[in-house]
Amino acid sequence: MEFRGIGVSSGIVIGKVFRLEKITYDIKPNWVRDTEVDEEVARFLKAIHTSKEQLLSIRKKIESLADTAQLQIIDAHLLILDDQMLVNETVEYIKRHRLSAEWSLKRVLDKIGEQFDKMGDAYLKERKDDLSHIGNRIFNNLFGYGHTNLADLKEDVIVVAHDLSPADTAQMRKERVIGFVTEIGSKTSHTAIMAHSLEIPAVVGVTGIYDAVTTGESLIVDGIDGIVHVSPPQPTFIAYLNKQRRYKYYERELLKMKDLPAITTDQKKVTLLANIEFIGEVKSVLERGGEGIGLYRTEFLYMNRFYPPTEAEHFRVYKSLAEQLSSYPSIIRTLDLGGDKFISQLDVYEELNPVLGLRAIRLCLEHIDLFKTQLRAILKASHYGKLKIMYPMISGLDELREANAVLKEVMDELRKANIPFDEEIEVGIMIEIPSAAITSDILAEEADFFSIGTNDLIQYSIAIDRVNKNVSYLYEPLHPAILRLIARVIESGHAKGILVGMCGEMASDPKYTLLLLGLGLDQYSTNSDALLKIKKIIRSVSYAEAREIAQQALTYCSASETEKFITNLMEERFPDVFCYFGDGDED
Amino acid sequence: MEFRGIGVSSGIVIGKVFRLEKITYDIKPNWVRDTEVDEEVARFLKAIHTSKEQLLSIRKKIESLADTAQLQIIDAHLLILDDQMLVNETVEYIKRHRLSAEWSLKRVLDKIGEQFDKMGDAYLKERKDDLSHIGNRIFNNLFGYGHTNLADLKEDVIVVAHDLSPADTAQMRKERVIGFVTEIGSKTSHTAIMAHSLEIPAVVGVTGIYDAVTTGESLIVDGIDGIVHVSPPQPTFIAYLNKQRRYKYYERELLKMKDLPAITTDQKKVTLLANIEFIGEVKSVLERGGEGIGLYRTEFLYMNRFYPPTEAEHFRVYKSLAEQLSSYPSIIRTLDLGGDKFISQLDVYEELNPVLGLRAIRLCLEHIDLFKTQLRAILKASHYGKLKIMYPMISGLDELREANAVLKEVMDELRKANIPFDEEIEVGIMIEIPSAAITSDILAEEADFFSIGTNDLIQYSIAIDRVNKNVSYLYEPLHPAILRLIARVIESGHAKGILVGMCGEMASDPKYTLLLLGLGLDQYSTNSDALLKIKKIIRSVSYAEAREIAQQALTYCSASETEKFITNLMEERFPDVFCYFGDGDED
Repeated sequence: MEFRGIGVSSGIVIGKVFRLEKITYDIKPNWVRDTEVDEEVARFLKAIHTSKEQLLSIRKKIESLADTAQLQIIDAHLLILDDQMLVNETVEYIKRHRLSAEWSLKRVLDKIGEQFDKMGDAYLKERKDDLSHIGNRIFNNLFGYGHTNLADLKEDVIVVAHDLSPADTAQMRKERVIGFVTEIGSKTSHTAIMAHSLEIPAVVGVTGIYDAVTTGESLIVDGIDGIVHVSPPQPTFIAYLNKQRRYKYYERELLKMKDLPAITTDQKKVTLLANIEFIGEVKSVLERGGEGIGLYRTEFLYMNRFYPPTEAEHFRVYKSLAEQLSSYPSIIRTLDLGGDKFISQLDVYEELNPVLGLRAIRLCLEHIDLFKTQLRAILKASHYGKLKIMYPMISGLDELREANAVLKEVMDELRKANIPFDEEIEVGIMIEIPSAAITSDILAEEADFFSIGTNDLIQYSIAIDRVNKNVSYLYEPLHPAILRLIARVIESGHAKGILVGMCGEMASDPKYTLLLLGLGLDQYSTNSDALLKIKKIIRSVSYAEAREIAQQALTYCSASETEKFITNLMEERFPDVFCYFGDGDED
Repeated sequence: MEFRGIGVSSGIVIGKVFRLEKITYDIKPNWVRDTEVDEEVARFLKAIHTSKEQLLSIRKKIESLADTAQLQIIDAHLLILDDQMLVNETVEYIKRHRLSAEWSLKRVLDKIGEQFDKMGDAYLKERKDDLSHIGNRIFNNLFGYGHTNLADLKEDVIVVAHDLSPADTAQMRKERVIGFVTEIGSKTSHTAIMAHSLEIPAVVGVTGIYDAVTTGESLIVDGIDGIVHVSPPQPTFIAYLNKQRRYKYYERELLKMKDLPAITTDQKKVTLLANIEFIGEVKSVLERGGEGIGLYRTEFLYMNRFYPPTEAEHFRVYKSLAEQLSSYPSIIRTLDLGGDKFISQLDVYEELNPVLGLRAIRLCLEHIDLFKTQLRAILKASHYGKLKIMYPMISGLDELREANAVLKEVMDELRKANIPFDEEIEVGIMIEIPSAAITSDILAEEADFFSIGTNDLIQYSIAIDRVNKNVSYLYEPLHPAILRLIARVIESGHAKGILVGMCGEMASDPKYTLLLLGLGLDQYSTNSDALLKIKKIIRSVSYAEAREIAQQALTYCSASETEKFITNLMEERFPDVFCYFGDGDED
């Protein structure tokens, strides 16, 4: 039986299933007697305490083995347990309504979850998973259920679960858990980042897998193509053993290119950068030959808290980033969140179409103090390494000028206070709104660099919400309009002598590498997994050839035609990237 | 004291306030005894019956005086009273929950209102007003409150109200009610259409006006600029008497141009069409020299009902439209609504960002039967006059081809059945999604005409929800990106020999007339009020001059600069349109 999902960590693994039982909680609105309210509150706080101890113990166990990304994810979960919103509101709820801790916690979690949902943001959708993972841990402790301790496994297994928290995942010692499959999850969830960091092959988002397997059954997990085979027949086994062997060889070959430049056969050099959320991820970026960070997301700093982060909190993170990258550059994107319920002292309206609302730079220009705090911290940290600033969601020149005026003010304040910062710091913008792409020639006059955010650019240009499954079929990176916009942005940048990068998902997909190269893209900012594959493609072609291909791609009238052209071309031209491993079923 | 709102019906009126008391209902969840449930249901149905009788009596009173648009609006309200959703659900609610008719009706209205809200659509926002107007009438009858009968006024008054329903407005006999002002309302609400049809100067959306006036106070209502003066000083009176006189003269002069062509001094001819919702509006369009209908909205046919309209219902309306316009063309836009809760047999998900969701042509291509019914009716009606078909929200060639394939199927069916239709019927598309504008050269190959929908085009291009007040400041028709897109669409159309029109709000605003002329626009589709003003501007300039101005406008880098250029230019070049009447305060 074959299942399909999202491969979040490369590699193929063949082994036996260990099914992690799904715990369901039967939570009812039980009343608490007046005299027992304090007791109930104490019981809740004890569960919080126990949850913290458990996470701290997991953290301790992995401290010596784990890289810092893993520890940072656990720390983020520990922060949620310290969160006033979650803990205080639940305590308040118990006291006010005289209802059980379980019910009260459930109501508070539902409420926070609803707020996340209302913001309709792909990033926040994943942060909701963090909350639910923490919630389940607290429920387990309230109900007195045991936790399956994945660290105590006695034989090599592939874990199959409805969902896994990063903490569950962290406990998977590589020697015992050789892979995992879940029904929940996405490419950028914290569980996926954890799996990636542990280098365990994994496939997430596999609907129906939990009910389809029993412990002990044999399983193939193909983390490359996101395929899972349950009790496969002999020929499939053999095919996958072959695919596995070929992939390992390919991976070794890729790693040999780690220190070589990303340069075409006719000497056109491009830069390969990575997108990260945790500073701990830097290590894996450098190991894969990344030449810096093309997108450092700062939203995490703002999440799950009553008050926005202080300048010191920002500074600590950015300084560490600057120092770890040493001479490589890091592009820090300023806050890119919308109508933020999580920064509760901001009085923000509920919005009906949040992705077209008060978000990102718009929110920052509305709440200048919030913006200044972040800018000041970035500037201060720029003294310790090579940082760049990037504004998200710029729609036109008026907005860019407004943001730069705030930046100038902050710089003047720092100069007056004799606080050193990089006077030459580059300030660029995301090109992710159609009006910015269309007027990129104008914006190039006053920006130091561009970074094309394809996810939003596609979303707005085609007028589709990409997380809405009703219309996701219209999300077409190869729509002629998208290719023309990308071409235009690159031309505009080059005409004014500024570098043009890309940090959307399109940059990470090797399918588009050659096309983007031919369109003249200077910098790819990708997930760290993609870095070497992209380098391999770039090193094996000439820029002249890539240019011809891009010109050809621009002649098609519809997304379906361009898609056919690019897919056929890439599979034929780079069989080692797109076909080399086979389907597993063939061969 | 000066108040500002939205002028919905031109002209200036000076007179005495008649303040229409706001009725508030104190509705509580009162229980009904088991034995009294049937009685309560009967009481509710009686209120429905009385409401109908009242509307029918109003309809009868105005029948001889009113034009058909007024009658059609009253009919639309009568339909809501026949609506199964409203009536049956309230009856069900009373029976199921054993709660009073008032409370049950309130809950059902709230629920339907929430569904309207969730769709985040400007059009639906106004339809919610219709529901609330009907709801208030039913509440009045349930509570036994009297209705203020505006038809019984004994002296000339300006009505000031929190809100007015179209039925209230219809009763305003022109001799007695010489103007009105409300706190609620928008330019395209049915109350506004009613006022327009009655030719009563009116200003809506005037926050705070209700509490600021008392009956008998003197008032100036400036429906031209949307200004209201409460108890103004002598000089303001005199200034407005002057403005009134000048405006009347100007209006007479405008009407003299009714039958003259919209042609520049150097013989460039453009076509002036109108946007309408009710067939009754055709009369007023023709009276103002309109040369056809550039946008016939068909959403109303789908509203407030359990089942979508039958082919016969569609056909009756379209045939009547075709016949009334005789040789003039009418462009019928196919369904332009989103994730439709109102067509309840369609199983549609709730969407988080509805304006980026399953709407318009996307919904039609998902529910082919719904689409085919409408297309078949339009084709059949095309036998009786000059109809054109227009698809909304086309994003690219694949979608246009898909829609045309459905149309071809319907045509084949009609041919087989020997049902006559216009074999030469033109099929065009709205250009309102950035990707369509950017690839308009490609789309022009397979579309018979373009109509630029600026409202959505601006919304998606700048990534703002125009009904979200947080970001409405970014809604800039003169953003360089918007002007470039419009220029590109017109060029693309002309290169392939097809006509390019515009039916967004930008086409109705005389401020943009010259700019759009210079960009090469062939057809303006406007609200009927704007027709003659636009004709006046076009007849007083040369195309050569307009082209120069458009070229100049395209050189600015930011919306603020272009705004300044166009505003100064138009005020200077056309003082009779933009300054002639003065502010009222000056002069």
